[in-house]
Amino acid sequence: MAEIPTAAISRLVTYLRILEQLELQDVSRTSSTDLAERAGVTAFQVRKDLAYFGRFGTRGMGYTVPILKRELVRVLGLNRTWNVVIVGVGRLGQAIANYPGASDYQFQYVGLFDVNPDLIGTQVRGLRVQHLDTLRDFTQTQTVDMGFLAVPPDRAQDAAQSLADASVKGILNFAPTVIQPRTIERPGHTDLSDEWRGVIVENVDFLAGMKRLAFYILNPHLKDAPTPEDPA
Amino acid sequence: MAEIPTAAISRLVTYLRILEQLELQDVSRTSSTDLAERAGVTAFQVRKDLAYFGRFGTRGMGYTVPILKRELVRVLGLNRTWNVVIVGVGRLGQAIANYPGASDYQFQYVGLFDVNPDLIGTQVRGLRVQHLDTLRDFTQTQTVDMGFLAVPPDRAQDAAQSLADASVKGILNFAPTVIQPRTIERPGHTDLSDEWRGVIVENVDFLAGMKRLAFYILNPHLKDAPTPEDPA
Repeated sequence: MAEIPTAAISRLVTYLRILEQLELQDVSRTSSTDLAERAGVTAFQVRKDLAYFGRFGTRGMGYTVPILKRELVRVLGLNRTWNVVIVGVGRLGQAIANYPGASDYQFQYVGLFDVNPDLIGTQVRGLRVQHLDTLRDFTQTQTVDMGFLAVPPDRAQDAAQSLADASVKGILNFAPTVIQPRTIERPGHTDLSDEWRGVIVENVDFLAGMKRLAFYILNPHLKDAPTPEDPA
Repeated sequence: MAEIPTAAISRLVTYLRILEQLELQDVSRTSSTDLAERAGVTAFQVRKDLAYFGRFGTRGMGYTVPILKRELVRVLGLNRTWNVVIVGVGRLGQAIANYPGASDYQFQYVGLFDVNPDLIGTQVRGLRVQHLDTLRDFTQTQTVDMGFLAVPPDRAQDAAQSLADASVKGILNFAPTVIQPRTIERPGHTDLSDEWRGVIVENVDFLAGMKRLAFYILNPHLKDAPTPEDPA
């Protein structure tokens, strides 16, 4: 599974989302052409992206929606439970905690952390907000796979470091700043060389959609056809 | 400006975000190599993406951060005011209304709409929440460029149609469902042919980051190097 572009993983997530919708609409079969149209890419791209992970369809017959969905769930690792803590429980953190759909894939919130004394001790979604200083102790007794960062931008780097210090494997950063994994010190390691295997960071740019939308409102003729070469 | 892939626009948004951070750090010069490393793509990709829109650097000299930033702001249409309404003012809609950074690019919230009687008449960010049924009247007197959808998934299609009926040009859909522009009827038009020029829709998948993160925690060796062919 070497050499799979990041964009292909993003597109798999899109295909999965489309398959979920088709299943809700009781559509049982689809094709690379149909998926491509719904995802805004070419059918060639769909087939290429899926081919990284195996053969899911029958030539000329397309795909069975529940089977392809199940396979993508497996490829993406969504068929297991992910224990998640949220760091930063202001409006954004609370919106994340309450967003519908996370529990569909067994993303399970096991802890909420903040540094604001007004929030600590309050209950959000049945969990008591704890001080960020206690995160490391918390992860001694509770498995935590991911941390969602929803802190102000100037606190994001320190909060990411707190998650790394607590041995959390992955960070989803919702703060309006880019965190690079290499800026996070790996506990017990000082080696930041090419051999570095540290925390995985994915940045969610809450404003990216607004900026793309602005561009396409001004340039609607560019919105239509994906090009064959680079259709993501 | 024909044939610009959607992925290139997404990458421009990423480059802009990196430039903003460099500017905050008082870094005045950058290069395609530096931008590429920070964005997780190749330097070739950076140069190709920027070349769609002109010549911004000097060969061998790299880019001046504030100049490249200003040019990307112009290309993306962020140097003007965008009047925005939010449809759906629950936790997610309120988080969007209060998210830091939107006002940096003159995204200006001019109206908030919902159908929940408990919310109508309440104040959020200095705006009174109004009933969605009044949106069309509202846009008779107030220019609205974009609508942000933050409604439950089963309400998203109807709410998108309400925005289209009110002649709003673009929709940013935060609901956990994919809205396709062609499923929205264009007011005063019945033509859904290839010539269709309707509402622009961008879907924001709040859960996409979680799914990518799950994949990369399971496959950390795939996270490192972007491939030359398809590095988004």
